[in-house]
Amino acid sequence: MKRIIRLLIAYDGSAYCGWQRQRQGEVTVQATLEKCLHTLCGHFPTVHGAGRTDAGVHAQGMVAHFHTSVGHPLAAFSKGLNSLLPPDIRILNAQEAATGFHSRFSAWAKTYRYDFYTEPVMLPTHRLYMAHLPGAFDPEPARQALGQLLGTHDFSSFERSGSRDLSNPGGRGAVRTLMQAECQPMTQMAYGWSLRLQGDGFLRQMVRIIAGTIIEVGQGKRSPESVAQILAAKDRKAAGQTAPACGLFLEEVHYPFSA
Amino acid sequence: MKRIIRLLIAYDGSAYCGWQRQRQGEVTVQATLEKCLHTLCGHFPTVHGAGRTDAGVHAQGMVAHFHTSVGHPLAAFSKGLNSLLPPDIRILNAQEAATGFHSRFSAWAKTYRYDFYTEPVMLPTHRLYMAHLPGAFDPEPARQALGQLLGTHDFSSFERSGSRDLSNPGGRGAVRTLMQAECQPMTQMAYGWSLRLQGDGFLRQMVRIIAGTIIEVGQGKRSPESVAQILAAKDRKAAGQTAPACGLFLEEVHYPFSA
Repeated sequence: MKRIIRLLIAYDGSAYCGWQRQRQGEVTVQATLEKCLHTLCGHFPTVHGAGRTDAGVHAQGMVAHFHTSVGHPLAAFSKGLNSLLPPDIRILNAQEAATGFHSRFSAWAKTYRYDFYTEPVMLPTHRLYMAHLPGAFDPEPARQALGQLLGTHDFSSFERSGSRDLSNPGGRGAVRTLMQAECQPMTQMAYGWSLRLQGDGFLRQMVRIIAGTIIEVGQGKRSPESVAQILAAKDRKAAGQTAPACGLFLEEVHYPFSA
Repeated sequence: MKRIIRLLIAYDGSAYCGWQRQRQGEVTVQATLEKCLHTLCGHFPTVHGAGRTDAGVHAQGMVAHFHTSVGHPLAAFSKGLNSLLPPDIRILNAQEAATGFHSRFSAWAKTYRYDFYTEPVMLPTHRLYMAHLPGAFDPEPARQALGQLLGTHDFSSFERSGSRDLSNPGGRGAVRTLMQAECQPMTQMAYGWSLRLQGDGFLRQMVRIIAGTIIEVGQGKRSPESVAQILAAKDRKAAGQTAPACGLFLEEVHYPFSA
């Protein structure tokens, strides 16, 4: 029996060189999952993730899938897999997926959250899960700037330089659609803020470059209006700093009801 | 010039054998602070903390003081000290204290918070800062039980066995006063709960034994009324489990306005 198993995964990215399997010796989330599934299934399945998070980036709702023919009950891929995995990776749910399901290609959107703290001294118990970007932060200009990013744009200015082969563009290039872009205070923490972005896809480091730029706006270092100029420039150098990886969480991958 | 410097300190207790200086080779928060102050001041001051947190317990508002004669500006004991300390210990504030101030003896109360998570699978990014105590949790019986602990009682049943020399009681023994005892949901996290206790003093492991007992009440393993019987028993064996250290935070040490 051929099965597609769909996993909902949370991880603390602090100790990992990102999601994607790399050269031998680099510990990644994908490679760690594959190693434990090998123990569990007796074969070595490729685990396909909905996205590739960078080193140090966290996930609360990563989705991944793999193919197998083993007859294990679903609990083997949740409880069973958790007993093999280190405590910084947890399977929240395992289910059978319909034929044709692909964690990446079936998804219609993803939501990322970026958490940061603006006081001069970072709180030790939050240092691995929030960026420390000290300075008075005003959410109103930040929200105005985020509003200009909503909708469909060429986000080249918000992509890490050298990420795509520009001599061979094809596909949708750097055009993406943002459906949601908000900035909220953290309810149980003064001086903590969350940016939340939902889009149909994200370029390499796009959320972190948007976060870095928007935080500069909120700190009065850029005007909210400058964001339209940054988009128009289609040049990474026009945008702000890439915000640190530790503040970024993949919150949710969105699928049609049928998937 | 003799000075008393008062520090407000936050730390991530995960990597420490608690607050108090131990035998050589055991890394504690107090010893780490003293080592860095030695570098800063050229002498080795004793840092007196308002309380002794156990291994793995965190602090967001520990207060400590030390005596010195060096003429450094106050910023040396905040920014300067932070540049020497590891990132899991941070000085939030340094100030001159009046003659006679003592972080422990001048305090009239302390507030501790106990955070826990009740879903079957722990979230990786919270595993070091919340206890994982899975099981359906009902806050109403937990609050009824907490209400019975309010006021002045002999808390012997909620003290780690062997903590005091009972052949030589003296002083206030195990009598303490709880002024506040509440149970609240975490606002940004479903299935996360916080217990908050304010008291004029806490016995060894008292907050963790109260937390373990109250959580058993919320999970239906004990009745709320049983808490009065536990108090009356004056016997550690009557109370519930000691809840894990990682959920506990020293939130605040309270002083009179004059201190």
